[in-house]
This record gives sequence, structure tokens and C-alpha cells, in this order.
Amino acid sequence: MHNDTILLAQLNPIVGDIEYNYNKALEYLKKAKEKNIKLVVYPELYLLGYPPIDIIERYPLIVEENIKYLEKFAQQCSDIAVLMGFCEFNKQKRGKKYFNSVAYINNGKIEKIMRKSLLPTYSEFSEGRYFEPANFKSQDRIINFNSLKAGIIICEENWNDGDFFQKPLYNFDPLEILVKEQHPDFIINLSASPTRTKKEQLLNNLLSHCAKKYSTPILYVNQTGSTDCITFSGTSRAYDKDGKLVARAKSYAEDFFEVTYPLSEKNRIEPLPKGVEKTLNSQKEFSLDYEPDLERTYLTITNAIKDYFNKNGFKRAVLGLSGGLDSSSCAVLLADAIGKENVIGISMPSKITSAQSKNDAKELAVNLGINFYEIPIKDMTDASSNTFNKVFDEINSAWGEYRYKAPLTFDNIQARSRAMILWGVSNEFSSTLPIATSDKSELYMGYATINGDMSGGFAPICDVTKTKLFALARWMNNNRKIKNAIPEAILLKPPGAELAINPKTGKPLLAEEALMPYEFLDEVIWRLENLQQKAQEMLEEKFLYEKRHNLTREQKKQWLEKFAARVQFAQFKWSIMPPGPIVDSRSIIRAEYIQPITSKLKF
Amino acid sequence: MHNDTILLAQLNPIVGDIEYNYNKALEYLKKAKEKNIKLVVYPELYLLGYPPIDIIERYPLIVEENIKYLEKFAQQCSDIAVLMGFCEFNKQKRGKKYFNSVAYINNGKIEKIMRKSLLPTYSEFSEGRYFEPANFKSQDRIINFNSLKAGIIICEENWNDGDFFQKPLYNFDPLEILVKEQHPDFIINLSASPTRTKKEQLLNNLLSHCAKKYSTPILYVNQTGSTDCITFSGTSRAYDKDGKLVARAKSYAEDFFEVTYPLSEKNRIEPLPKGVEKTLNSQKEFSLDYEPDLERTYLTITNAIKDYFNKNGFKRAVLGLSGGLDSSSCAVLLADAIGKENVIGISMPSKITSAQSKNDAKELAVNLGINFYEIPIKDMTDASSNTFNKVFDEINSAWGEYRYKAPLTFDNIQARSRAMILWGVSNEFSSTLPIATSDKSELYMGYATINGDMSGGFAPICDVTKTKLFALARWMNNNRKIKNAIPEAILLKPPGAELAINPKTGKPLLAEEALMPYEFLDEVIWRLENLQQKAQEMLEEKFLYEKRHNLTREQKKQWLEKFAARVQFAQFKWSIMPPGPIVDSRSIIRAEYIQPITSKLKF
Repeated sequence: MHNDTILLAQLNPIVGDIEYNYNKALEYLKKAKEKNIKLVVYPELYLLGYPPIDIIERYPLIVEENIKYLEKFAQQCSDIAVLMGFCEFNKQKRGKKYFNSVAYINNGKIEKIMRKSLLPTYSEFSEGRYFEPANFKSQDRIINFNSLKAGIIICEENWNDGDFFQKPLYNFDPLEILVKEQHPDFIINLSASPTRTKKEQLLNNLLSHCAKKYSTPILYVNQTGSTDCITFSGTSRAYDKDGKLVARAKSYAEDFFEVTYPLSEKNRIEPLPKGVEKTLNSQKEFSLDYEPDLERTYLTITNAIKDYFNKNGFKRAVLGLSGGLDSSSCAVLLADAIGKENVIGISMPSKITSAQSKNDAKELAVNLGINFYEIPIKDMTDASSNTFNKVFDEINSAWGEYRYKAPLTFDNIQARSRAMILWGVSNEFSSTLPIATSDKSELYMGYATINGDMSGGFAPICDVTKTKLFALARWMNNNRKIKNAIPEAILLKPPGAELAINPKTGKPLLAEEALMPYEFLDEVIWRLENLQQKAQEMLEEKFLYEKRHNLTREQKKQWLEKFAARVQFAQFKWSIMPPGPIVDSRSIIRAEYIQPITSKLKF
Repeated sequence: MHNDTILLAQLNPIVGDIEYNYNKALEYLKKAKEKNIKLVVYPELYLLGYPPIDIIERYPLIVEENIKYLEKFAQQCSDIAVLMGFCEFNKQKRGKKYFNSVAYINNGKIEKIMRKSLLPTYSEFSEGRYFEPANFKSQDRIINFNSLKAGIIICEENWNDGDFFQKPLYNFDPLEILVKEQHPDFIINLSASPTRTKKEQLLNNLLSHCAKKYSTPILYVNQTGSTDCITFSGTSRAYDKDGKLVARAKSYAEDFFEVTYPLSEKNRIEPLPKGVEKTLNSQKEFSLDYEPDLERTYLTITNAIKDYFNKNGFKRAVLGLSGGLDSSSCAVLLADAIGKENVIGISMPSKITSAQSKNDAKELAVNLGINFYEIPIKDMTDASSNTFNKVFDEINSAWGEYRYKAPLTFDNIQARSRAMILWGVSNEFSSTLPIATSDKSELYMGYATINGDMSGGFAPICDVTKTKLFALARWMNNNRKIKNAIPEAILLKPPGAELAINPKTGKPLLAEEALMPYEFLDEVIWRLENLQQKAQEMLEEKFLYEKRHNLTREQKKQWLEKFAARVQFAQFKWSIMPPGPIVDSRSIIRAEYIQPITSKLKF
């Protein structure tokens, strides 16, 4: 029996920065040589960085560079074998410009090139836009490594098992063909597979299932780090021929991850984010028990912020602190991602802002140790209101009949004045990015102000619903080094934008008064995204909210109709949201979901 | 010989509004019956509306509805045959959820269903995201119509000719297979094919080539109207077996278009937009002669505005009028698209605004007959400046070392105050949308203010470069009913944002001083988008600008480097641009081109 060590190089590339990616790869290669490792495996498309989306369409020089550096890399490999993901020109007479390929480098030469046959083109994946799907021939997928036969599989080619999935997306299963025709000793899977709620469970079950089904071990290497909205957790791993997990790399970090073959318990198994193991059974109904996903959510968002800032040359963040849940949670996430000294929170009270809100904002900032300033916006809102009144009086002559005279117009001046200050800070201080603090529930409802709270360079919580955000805030209070950074008062008060007064109560209008209870709203979103349910089905099925509160059918119907109408209207707001991390199992983030604004929804 | 009339139903559907689309189809059907027409052909995916993008992923009820209405429609067709584009559920065990299908309805029944085999997934097309590509079997594509054999082709299946295209995108050619195996009497092509610069030339040459090559007439039906960024010109047509154009429907309008078979010169041939015929040879180099494309550009933008407003329930538009080219051109396009009474232009002068600019803005508004108001923004900018100064003094203690103290911060207050007023008008008056007036050249350079001139609900000229916009403005001045709406002074003055003073001249900073000459910039954009050229290639090749002006190699190199740096930085601005019509042969509009913000360009 052999005793070989394979290195799974779990790295964090930058899309298009070939030299950077090359240098990182080289670092690991040198270390691997020192340790006498015989095979190093890099993730899918590693040299180019994943996902390239359309830049390789307009900038073919990037692809030329990745070829050049691949050849340069091969020259460093006279005494070590390497599997390297890269982008290849398609020189055939027909088809798309490129292949998503893997080079097998041996004896300092590119010995074999393997081309991906199944190209994910859905949700956050758009490989069908620029890659040509290759014909899958199993003999091309075998490499001989120290008299072992390894079968090579590229990401999506592993996600097509007819027993595991109810309706696989493609009409053939590369893994099945490879195993049945070539009988490899083990499988190596090169991936770039993003994180999501429940994804770890799916990945684990799938790989375990396939290893066991074919009685063939699987080694899986994944990239880590973030590109805009998409975050990769890393978490490379190995399953033995019985489908048992025998090795697992770090999550949300680069990892020089050695796996010894034959696979045994001597390999390193790093922990998953706390709680994620508990999500190993698929969630069949909506639940407010977010606990098992909170550390993963926290790590996804903080890593997404960190990489968005680092990779794009931003260093500092500025955000408005209202004393509410959304901005407070964003402040904590930012402080942890880029350092408290690099965050400025500004309280920008208007006449509606309560003393309590101002105090809460300040207390949060002090607890976090971020920079904090309080600037009343009265002069700005007064000047704008006066100017607006002049404008509207003039327009009245032409369009008076269409005038709402609703307080909304003047309410929004507050949100927009605040965003103006944040962008001013961004203009005045180098490498400083304003933060959009809208959450997912409110975005669904279009309950966010354009050029106001919706405005910023990055939107950390745009894929976190309100009920989950409450849980995340509590989790952060309990699990960060400095406990209870978010004052209890913020967690107890019902959410509200503090832009308007509710005439019925004489107090600031609460979000749930303007919309519907968040617990109900979040279940509608969950059912729509996860089950693609229709309103009629939702009406018939019992919501968690109904188990906990009285709810008439008429009221439920009204809320569902309100949801439909508001979502229809919210489309044009979604189209101008800044990027933010995909966290949930489904999102409305444009990197994943594209809806024509001009369309009629029916649900 | 037969003498049959076929109706090409060139219609403008609304995506997802099945009932609306059905009722329109029915109207044409009734009229066709009255005229004793035997076959009616509707465009690709007509019942659903094209492009659905992702809504059918989340809202399967829309697809259920389109099936229901298809069946209802079939019941109306006891005495007439119909080809109808619709979306079908894929009930097979593997594959994507849906097929892009065509139903052949005969004797009141759905007699045959044909499924699209080639699914465009590039640029503005994303069919691979949700449709399963069908196996192409030629026998399934024949319908017998009055003892004639018609072969049915769906859009992209016609765009894959190995003689016509240098590198066809797919590895088989459905049209070739259909003709060679089935010998149809003629081909019917159901399409949803958007307009672009040079597209008419491409389409005409391709269809003519195929008809001639196979000695088989081709009838082509296309939809019309716009969905967000994408506009369909209609222009359905027929080519005889010699490849000669013998029938052509209207452009940019619905058309009840009868074609008589056998094809002869008796058929109706509507004119193309003026000049388009002249573009029948592919443009090999950059040119400032935009004339042949200006009416098409004008029609594309005005139709896009009209449909964006009508289909989304907007009625009125408000925009800032600076007296410059961008806002003036937008005002003309808006007035023509939605009616002058529905447009408000607001001049919002600051201390930098010249008397000339104010006069020009007013004169334009008077010429157009739109509503016009002048509102100085001094109170707003003063209040903001004062507040900013307080904020910055405070922040100075923490981040003073990172402070720019560049005038940009305060310059931008002007643009943002103006956008605030426009959004205020939108909040206060029903169904009113603010307009973003940025042009393509400036967007490439990131020379647009976030929450300022870049902000709005629709961006009419975001795919028109500055040099082309000058030509378009002159064209509108010459070709609209009311001549010279745009004052000559606006066409003569060099562009500038009038936000800043150039310290060298003491006058408002001109855009070309801040950037580079537009003539040069627009050629760089053209070469990048059309030829995917690298900077090195551009450096070596002679630009039009170099034929007309002196330009040192050093200066050219500097401009190219500046271009690369600014485009890299502009990415995050592109991501929050509102939708606007795709006009050019390539665009940076997100409906077509997706670039990761987090990426390193190399060109």
C-alpha cells in the first residue's frame, strides 16, 4: 500500500490578477516541495480567479496572461506534480471562446488538459456565458500518480447524481461515467463552490453519498475568499470509500491542507462554523431558530466585507448610526471585518429622532470603540424643505392634480441628507466607503429610501431578513470577545425608520405598522424563495405566525396581496442596490437573481 | 401553385402579463379570421413575453398561466392554424425547469410542440439560465399547411451558419439539418431579436444568405417594444429562394403583417429607419459619421422610454436641465417619448452656473414646450457645506491624515442637491420618474456623481457616447417637426459638468480637460467593445484622432493608461446605474455586460 501526501491548496485568488494568484500558488508550491509532497491541487479556475463573469469577454489579455503564467508555473514543477485550474482558449471551429480547464503538470510540463463538461448557468453562476462545454471522455480524466489512478472531476460534474437529486440538471453524469469506465483509485474534485445557508449539509451529503456509492474516496479542494457578492468558505475535505469524512480544512481562511493517502483518521479535521453541523437535515419549514446558521452568517459577511475592501483598495467605512437594529448590526460587522479604527459611525438626528435613539447609537459606538460623531441635520433638512416647497409651488400650476401632499416626500429628505453626508465623507477622506444598511425584509417591501439608507458602496446585510438579523445581533452580543456591544435597548425596541410620525399613535411610525409583522413577512419570503409557493398555497398552509398569534384569513390575504404589490413596485429599487454578500439559501441580489423591472408578477 | 396568406403578428408583449398578451393575440386572430387568413405566426415566447429572465424561476404561476391561456387560445382556432411561442414545463427526469417552445395549433387543438435547441446565453441573452436545450429532430419541425411543407426554426437556430459566421457558437446547425433532411417549401422563423447598431445589416445578410444557400424562402417574425434595457425593432420580413427581400414590416411599431405565398413583389415593404440601409457593410474602423444610425438610435431610445413608462405605470418625468448636451438631449427624447406636457425640466443653478447655461436651459425648454422651472440651490448647498465642514472638523481628529481637502467633495454637493430635488418631485407627484442623464463616455470614465447626475429611474443615453450624442442632437434639430429645439449654443460649447472651476483657466472645468478628448476616448471605447483590442495594439494603430490632430506617442500612452485606471475605478458606479436602453453594438449596461467589481483589468 502507498503512503502519499497530497496538498489541497485552499487559496483566495483575485479575479483577473494573474500575477498575484501565481505568486500565491508559488508560495504553496515551494513549501510543498520542502515537505516532499508529490501532488499539489489548486481550485477550479484558480489562476484566473473565480468568478470571472464577463471580463474575459472584453479583456482577452487576462486569459493570455493566465496561459503565460501557467507555462511559467509548469517550469517550477520539475520534481512535483500539480493540478491547476485555468482558463483556456477554445481553438475549435465552433463554440464559445473559452474552456474552464485543469492542467495536469508533471515533470515540469503540461502533460494533460482536462476541460469542464457541465457548466453551471443559474443563480450566481454564469459559466454558460463564455465557456464551451467539453465532451466528456473518461480516459482524458485519469492521471497516474505514484502508480495510483486518480480520476479528475471539476466542480459541477460532481453535482449531477441521479439518486441524490430529484431532478438533476444535466442529461449525463460525468462522475458515474468516470468511475464505471476507468475504476480510479480515488477522485479529485477541483471546485469553486460558494457558501449559502444549508450548503454545507448538501455538499457533505452529496460527496459522502458519491464516495460510498462508488466505493471510491473523494478529495475535494475549494477556494476561499469573496468576490463582490459571492463568498467561498474553503472547507476542502476528503471522504473515504465508505463515505466517511476523514479530513476537513479550515473554513473562511486559506489553508495549506495536506491529505495523506490511503485516507485514515490521522488526517486533520478542522471544525465547521459552530452550529452548521446541526443543519445537516434539510429545513422543510420556516423556523425562527436561526442559531445553527449564525456563526456561518457572521463569517460570510465579515469575510465578504474584508475582501471587498482589501481587494478593491478601500480601507475605511462610514455609516449612519440611527440607534436601530440595521445600522447597529452593520457597525459591529464592519468593526470586526476591517478594524474598529477604520469605522466611523455618525449619528445624524432630525427632529423625529428620539433621545433614546441618540443615546443608543452613542452607546453602541462606545462599546465597539469605533469613531463616533453626532451631527444634527436640521440645517440641511430645513434648507431642502424650503427649496422643495418653492419647487412644488411652481410645479403645482402644471401638475397640481397629481400632487400627493403626503409626508413621505419630506420624510425622505432626512434619509437623503444623511446619505449625502456619508458620500461627502467618502469624497473627502481617501479610500473611504459609505455603507448601505438596508436589510432583506425591507428591500423586499421597497421600504428603503433611494439615495438614502439604500445608498452606499456595499450593503452588508442585504441578504439577511429582519427576524434573522435580530438573532444575529444577539449571537454577536454573546460570541464576540467584547460582549453585548449592541445595547439591549436596540434589541428590544420594535424596528422603525424614524422618518415619519404615525398619526394614530403620535409616535414614530413603526415598520410593522407600515408593512406587516416581520415574522409573517419573513415566512412569505422564505416560502417564495425556497418553495416557489403561490399566494394561494400560502393562504392554505399554516404559517408559524398563525401558530403563535391570532390571524384571520382576511388579514392574511391582505398581507399577501400587500406583499405582491410591494414586491412588484420594489423591482426598480433592487436594480440600483449596491453589492452585498449572498448569505441566504436564495437571495434577490443581482449576482444571483435577475428580474425584469418591466414585468407583471403573479404569485 | 398555391396562393396563401400568412400573417406575421408583430406584437409588443409585456413580460409576465399573460392576459394582456393573450388579448392582443386574440385581436389579431379575429382580424385574421375576418380576412380569411389560414396561418398566423406569433413571435418567440410571445405568450410569456421576452425576455422573462429569472421571474419564471421564482414565480412558476406565470408559466402555469401561459399554458392555461395557450389552451384557451387553441379553442379559438377551429378554423385557422397558428404558431404560438410559449414557455413549457420540462417534465423530463433531468434538465432545467422549462423549454422555450412553439405550439402548432390546428383544428382547434395543439397539434405539435416544437422546442428550441440552441439557447443564446451571452450579452443580453440568458436563456441557458432556465431553459433546457431540446434535442433537435428535423421531423418534429415540419408543419403541413395547405399541402405546403413549412419548416419551423426558433430564433438562435438560424444564427449558426458555418459559411456566414467565422466561428459559430454551437456545434450543429439546426437550419442545415432541417433543410437537408426535410426539404421544406419554406422556413418560418419565430424570433425575439433585439436591435443594436449594425444588427439590421447582420440580420438581413444572414437571412438572405441562408435563403439563397438552401434555395428556400424564409419568413421571419419578430416582436417589437421594449423591456427595461432591451428594445425590439420588429421589422419582420420575408426572403425569396434567391435571398431577395420581398416583404418587410414596420420598424418600432406593432404590425398586422400579411405575407402572400408564393412570395412576390406584391408584398408590402416598409422602409427602415432612415440611413440604416447604408450600414449594410460592417464597420471596420471607428468613424465619426454616425448619420446612418441616428434615426434608429432615436427610435430605440424613444421607444424604450415610452415602454418603460407605459408598462410600469409611470406617466411623468422630471430632470435637471443644465444647459449642457446630456440633459438637453434627454429632454428632447423624453418630450417625444411621453409628451411635452409630461416632462418637467428644472434648472438648478449654483454659484458656478453661468448666465449662458441658465439661458440655454430655458431656451431649450421653451422650444420644446415642456414645463420649466428655475430653482437656485444655494440654500441647500450652503447648508450642506456648513454641515460638511462641521463633520469634517470632527473626523479630522481621527482621520486627518487621510483627508484630501480636494474641491471635489463640495463640487459634488451641487449634483447631489439637484438629484435630491428630483427625487423629491418624484415622491410628491404621482407616477413621476427622475431621469439620470449620464452618457456612455462619461460612465466609462466614472465621470458621473453617485446620487447626483447618475441617479434616476431611467438613463436614456447611457449607451450613447459623447461624439455620437452631438450627432444625435444635430439630427434631432434637423428632423423633428419643430426644428432646432436644442439651441445652437449648446451644440457649440465644449462639455463640462459646471461643478468645479479649473484653477488654470479660472473658468468652469471642461470635461476634456479632466479626461481626454472625446474623439479619442470614444475610439478607445469602440476598439475595446468591438475589437477587444489591448492597449498595446491601440498604441500601435493609428486613431482617427491622430489623423486630425497632432498626438505624441507619450500622450497617447498616458491617455490609454488613464482610461484603464478610470475604467477600473468606475466599476462600482456601473453597478448602481439605473436601467437604460442598449443602443450601441456593445454596451456596459448590466443587462448585457457583467463585470466583477472586485477584479483587476488588464488591457
